[in-house]
Amino acid sequence: MREYVELGTGRTARRGWNLSDISIVASRRTRSSKDVDTTWHIDAYTFKVPFVSHPTDALADPEFIIEMDRLGGMGVINAEGLWGRHADLNAAIDSVRAAATNEAGEFDYNSVAANKVLQELHAAPLDTELLSERIAQVRASGATVAVRVSPQRARELAPIVIKAGAELLFIQGTIVSAEHVENDGQPLNLKEFVGSLDVPVIAGGVGDYSTAMHLMRSGVAGVIVGDGEATNNVALGIDSPMATAIADVAAARRDYLDETGGRYVHVIADGEIFNSGDAVKAIACGADGVILGSCLARAKEAAGKGYFWPSVAAHPRFPRGMVEPVLLPEDTTEAPSLEVVLFGPSSDPLGTLNFVGALKRAMAKCGFTELKRFQKVDLTVTF
Amino acid sequence: MREYVELGTGRTARRGWNLSDISIVASRRTRSSKDVDTTWHIDAYTFKVPFVSHPTDALADPEFIIEMDRLGGMGVINAEGLWGRHADLNAAIDSVRAAATNEAGEFDYNSVAANKVLQELHAAPLDTELLSERIAQVRASGATVAVRVSPQRARELAPIVIKAGAELLFIQGTIVSAEHVENDGQPLNLKEFVGSLDVPVIAGGVGDYSTAMHLMRSGVAGVIVGDGEATNNVALGIDSPMATAIADVAAARRDYLDETGGRYVHVIADGEIFNSGDAVKAIACGADGVILGSCLARAKEAAGKGYFWPSVAAHPRFPRGMVEPVLLPEDTTEAPSLEVVLFGPSSDPLGTLNFVGALKRAMAKCGFTELKRFQKVDLTVTF
Amino acid sequence: MREYVELGTGRTARRGWNLSDISIVASRRTRSSKDVDTTWHIDAYTFKVPFVSHPTDALADPEFIIEMDRLGGMGVINAEGLWGRHADLNAAIDSVRAAATNEAGEFDYNSVAANKVLQELHAAPLDTELLSERIAQVRASGATVAVRVSPQRARELAPIVIKAGAELLFIQGTIVSAEHVENDGQPLNLKEFVGSLDVPVIAGGVGDYSTAMHLMRSGVAGVIVGDGEATNNVALGIDSPMATAIADVAAARRDYLDETGGRYVHVIADGEIFNSGDAVKAIACGADGVILGSCLARAKEAAGKGYFWPSVAAHPRFPRGMVEPVLLPEDTTEAPSLEVVLFGPSSDPLGTLNFVGALKRAMAKCGFTELKRFQKVDLTVTF
Amino acid sequence: MREYVELGTGRTARRGWNLSDISIVASRRTRSSKDVDTTWHIDAYTFKVPFVSHPTDALADPEFIIEMDRLGGMGVINAEGLWGRHADLNAAIDSVRAAATNEAGEFDYNSVAANKVLQELHAAPLDTELLSERIAQVRASGATVAVRVSPQRARELAPIVIKAGAELLFIQGTIVSAEHVENDGQPLNLKEFVGSLDVPVIAGGVGDYSTAMHLMRSGVAGVIVGDGEATNNVALGIDSPMATAIADVAAARRDYLDETGGRYVHVIADGEIFNSGDAVKAIACGADGVILGSCLARAKEAAGKGYFWPSVAAHPRFPRGMVEPVLLPEDTTEAPSLEVVLFGPSSDPLGTLNFVGALKRAMAKCGFTELKRFQKVDLTVTF
Repeated sequence: MREYVELGTGRTARRGWNLSDISIVASRRTRSSKDVDTTWHIDAYTFKVPFVSHPTDALADPEFIIEMDRLGGMGVINAEGLWGRHADLNAAIDSVRAAATNEAGEFDYNSVAANKVLQELHAAPLDTELLSERIAQVRASGATVAVRVSPQRARELAPIVIKAGAELLFIQGTIVSAEHVENDGQPLNLKEFVGSLDVPVIAGGVGDYSTAMHLMRSGVAGVIVGDGEATNNVALGIDSPMATAIADVAAARRDYLDETGGRYVHVIADGEIFNSGDAVKAIACGADGVILGSCLARAKEAAGKGYFWPSVAAHPRFPRGMVEPVLLPEDTTEAPSLEVVLFGPSSDPLGTLNFVGALKRAMAKCGFTELKRFQKVDLTVTF
Repeated sequence: MREYVELGTGRTARRGWNLSDISIVASRRTRSSKDVDTTWHIDAYTFKVPFVSHPTDALADPEFIIEMDRLGGMGVINAEGLWGRHADLNAAIDSVRAAATNEAGEFDYNSVAANKVLQELHAAPLDTELLSERIAQVRASGATVAVRVSPQRARELAPIVIKAGAELLFIQGTIVSAEHVENDGQPLNLKEFVGSLDVPVIAGGVGDYSTAMHLMRSGVAGVIVGDGEATNNVALGIDSPMATAIADVAAARRDYLDETGGRYVHVIADGEIFNSGDAVKAIACGADGVILGSCLARAKEAAGKGYFWPSVAAHPRFPRGMVEPVLLPEDTTEAPSLEVVLFGPSSDPLGTLNFVGALKRAMAKCGFTELKRFQKVDLTVTF
Repeated sequence: MREYVELGTGRTARRGWNLSDISIVASRRTRSSKDVDTTWHIDAYTFKVPFVSHPTDALADPEFIIEMDRLGGMGVINAEGLWGRHADLNAAIDSVRAAATNEAGEFDYNSVAANKVLQELHAAPLDTELLSERIAQVRASGATVAVRVSPQRARELAPIVIKAGAELLFIQGTIVSAEHVENDGQPLNLKEFVGSLDVPVIAGGVGDYSTAMHLMRSGVAGVIVGDGEATNNVALGIDSPMATAIADVAAARRDYLDETGGRYVHVIADGEIFNSGDAVKAIACGADGVILGSCLARAKEAAGKGYFWPSVAAHPRFPRGMVEPVLLPEDTTEAPSLEVVLFGPSSDPLGTLNFVGALKRAMAKCGFTELKRFQKVDLTVTF
Repeated sequence: MREYVELGTGRTARRGWNLSDISIVASRRTRSSKDVDTTWHIDAYTFKVPFVSHPTDALADPEFIIEMDRLGGMGVINAEGLWGRHADLNAAIDSVRAAATNEAGEFDYNSVAANKVLQELHAAPLDTELLSERIAQVRASGATVAVRVSPQRARELAPIVIKAGAELLFIQGTIVSAEHVENDGQPLNLKEFVGSLDVPVIAGGVGDYSTAMHLMRSGVAGVIVGDGEATNNVALGIDSPMATAIADVAAARRDYLDETGGRYVHVIADGEIFNSGDAVKAIACGADGVILGSCLARAKEAAGKGYFWPSVAAHPRFPRGMVEPVLLPEDTTEAPSLEVVLFGPSSDPLGTLNFVGALKRAMAKCGFTELKRFQKVDLTVTF
């Protein structure tokens, strides 16, 4: 039974909850965090930890992806970002960072200069050979290669990135459906398209049960819930409170599993994750994996060197993502390594470091040792 | 079934929601924003976009109205503002802006000096010839001419502005009813008055179903919901949360349509609109058109040159509107053009530019191509 | 039917709403504010406006009380404040103001130095002759004299202040009941005590139906709802959300009226009133009169010359009121007169001036001309 | 009947309330605070006031514990803190304070340098002889000795601290259960362990009914509700809104009392207590005793000399507590004595001083003279 309110006479709206509205309740015997298993299996791939990097050039240069893989997570390359547009990735990113700071070297929240520079950098043509070369470089390292394309360019770019070495394909926009309709164009029928590919597809984001169910029926291996750190709410009025959205999509996973007699589609959360507590709550609501964006931007290996932006921040006419500095949790001049961000040790009580330790401790304190079972942990809402 | 709470023993209050409490949920197949039609027909007039400018001198000088028309929207002239009181409009507005800033050129939120200057400027007599001349100048440009009068002076001023060229008459106060009663005076019976006019009338603001229904029965072509950016809540304790108010007035539209066997009265939202997401949400709640106030004040064509105030800010004894600077979304010295505010391109992820692009994208992402159908999109509330 | 929630297993709590959670909805034909009558009759006394000044030395010196009377409101003298303790009232108040500012002349929110000075000033013995003299001075002006005593000292001081000229007696503490029980002492039985007096008694504050009903049964002419601007919530954990509390006490008024076959006890709100909108909402919830505290401190006649504190700020061991500067709504060096605070004209859109104009306008816009009927106006809650 | 919401399709969450969401309602005759009895009996021990100090080195040096006892409260020593690790306690604490301030002597909220220093200080080995010596010193003063150990080291350290003089044993972690399970280790079966000890055990924190019931069944004398001032919510996603959690554990107390035919287990709140009003609310929700952390850090006897941190701030890989300065309520250079913090007199209206006076006044104003009965006082929620 969903919760509805009558917004106005004859117009209902559904109640939803954000991750910040909920908390996990420990109500069983406690366990040792050493006994917790965080292994995540999706399709033929196994990851030591259920964390994925958001496909943005603010995180991913080839070294970052390789390090993410070494540490047991999944790094995702944005095929439509800077990798295929600029030979000198560092210089491109430096120009974004320079635009984000004023003459005194301080960040200006009202400035959109950095978005403008991003738009200019993305106006450069996509050199698929350069892109392929860089993807191949990551593949050559032995790392699992995951590449993101937009729904609009999926048909064109998917074959190229798969040929270059992509083993997992993300078809990710801020809002995605199983069928994108254009009056003067060929709709992207995701079912046919996914069926034609040799690699598992992870698609999204979605914010509700029915869109998720349609994506699942199109044959994807995973569905992304949420729009990352996009500003869709102020820009478009569109938003899906994540606690409710994850639970809804997990319900679609359960119903699709029943409908297919056993096909398990993974639910991957991408939104409202700003500290390790949020990442844990996403799994508690039903997510199998969690995409981390600005949370990973603190790592010294992150390409943005202290700045984060989601991929949609570069949209040519309607950007929906901020270019923002990421506050370092340590008062050192050195940013922490990605390994410390993921595995600690941490000296920060505010949940910016040791995400895997946080997950293990939270599960242990609630009496769980397996991710799947932890999706049933008791929850409380305070609104 | 409306939602009521028992505020105290034997005293009920109805629950209401603000636009900021709700979000739109995308739950259908996506479409291309190129296929979206934003055309708005009201009475004999057709507008390319469903956006209207708030009748304030902070927006409207003749050039602004003409440009608003050229871009496909509706610009509204305030007949009781400065147009008919001061030969030099620019000088008048400059004196408001000067009063709003301190010696260091900074805005002071505690100062009411700008309201005082506005009061003084409005104490000048209304020269109806000057007003008529300026209205005629706009009409001469070929632009559709919409003029606002207050309910108090409607009888006196309506014939004058219509004669001068007004094609649409706004009878707008912060709160308006179909019958205004005075013990020692002639009540304004809106039904008789509207019937006596040759032009369509748009009246408001209202905040609930029954007042809206009475206005509709008086023969108006459109009903305004909300009190603009008035400060009625702190000053009078009166407020109508806009998501609920729009939905209620849309219900009155539906019932009146049924009662009359086909008379469609337009619902026009004026309140709680601070970014493009808010404008989209207003339509999603049931509005046919949206009045933009401070959102348009960023345009370099706006008469206030960086300052906004609603018309009620000039009230002689009880002003209920702030004179406030509008933060520019760009770190340039140049304000964006009205065309960029409405149609982009935007570099700002926070929804201050490209209102039409926002509306089209939001509709497309939710699978709609017509404004009317988008009024049924799924909504979520987070309180 | 009251609204209850189960706070925890087996422990219920009642839902309550603050004035800031509610708004008034205009849902009838509008009227002219000229036709509104704000006359307030209580016992044998008639006031032009239903506003009462909080009994604090931050407002009341003799001139303030006389001016309050001249303007048609009720000024209340605090018998246990500085009037009877210090020959030089101005010097006493200046020492409070001096303690509230640091060397740079700025207010320091963390400082409790001003509370300490208040405590020292109140440690001086109460000279009942000096107090009587000052009360008599006000009475001599022809003004209606209302004097507040605490429940603890009511028996001792009431005869003195009545003899000196008090025509209305306030027995006001932050929380008051009809019977105050002490193991080693004589309880104050309000019923007997009120019966023994020749002047009408107004008692409170209370926060719920049953305490209010008991006070009514003790024979008082009015019941005060709320604890003024006390900090009882952070200090004691005690608070009554005012919208709910006023409605509850109004229900007690109705039931007591029925029970007695016609004895009407006035409900007077004292709490959560920070602007004219709040004052209007208090009446809309059911109040007959409204006590204004910091709202009146802006007047140049207020004794605190820009500072406000409720009487409980001087408690010897446990003060529950801040000494705070009152922001002036005007950027002039002159504070507005009490007449402007009450009757305007105002240049401030934020509801700090023209309280009577606000009340008249709000009533007129909602279609009411009598205070009593306005207590039934439609309300909305946004939580 | 617990209150549940459907978070998302098929996934329920329980509604919970924080102490800041509730208020106490005075609805009976008032009493004199002189008649209020705050005596707290737990096991064989009697305390004049129901307040306990959080087991942190930021509060407790031997002198603090002795003074806490002299004033009638319970001071708790942290056996795993600095007492047994550093001969010079003052120097150790000074190094934490030094790390918490920047060169200008100001506190930096983003800095985790103080947590790092704490981690280093706690990396020193635990010298049980030094610890025993210090515990014995407190015991020698005649003060009641309460010592906290973690569940992990309870078996090892309990015999040592009891031998040294501990009369009450706290087994306290941020989240504790009756049985802690480790795959490669011996679980701590609390029931057996508690049964083997000669002193009463107080264990926690817990956040719900069932965990509390299990702890009660293990034979403890008291159950701690809450995680102190830990940052579990942002770090782990785990949190129990305190008003609901206390009420739930009080329900377990009632059910266990029934189940055992008379064994009363005390409920002790440790969390969300930031002023005297919060402490009163905790008892009103059902707590028998209240643990004060940062509230006591203002006292000049507190070891942290103006800084507070909960014990978990020192965790080696995942600290969940801030090192924070405590704002002094007085603008003097002298901090108030612990006696003033507990018994006043206070000059601060914001509830930072005179906790016992606050409790007595709140109970008296609500008509109660016994702590146990006050647990039934009327409550209101504003969400």
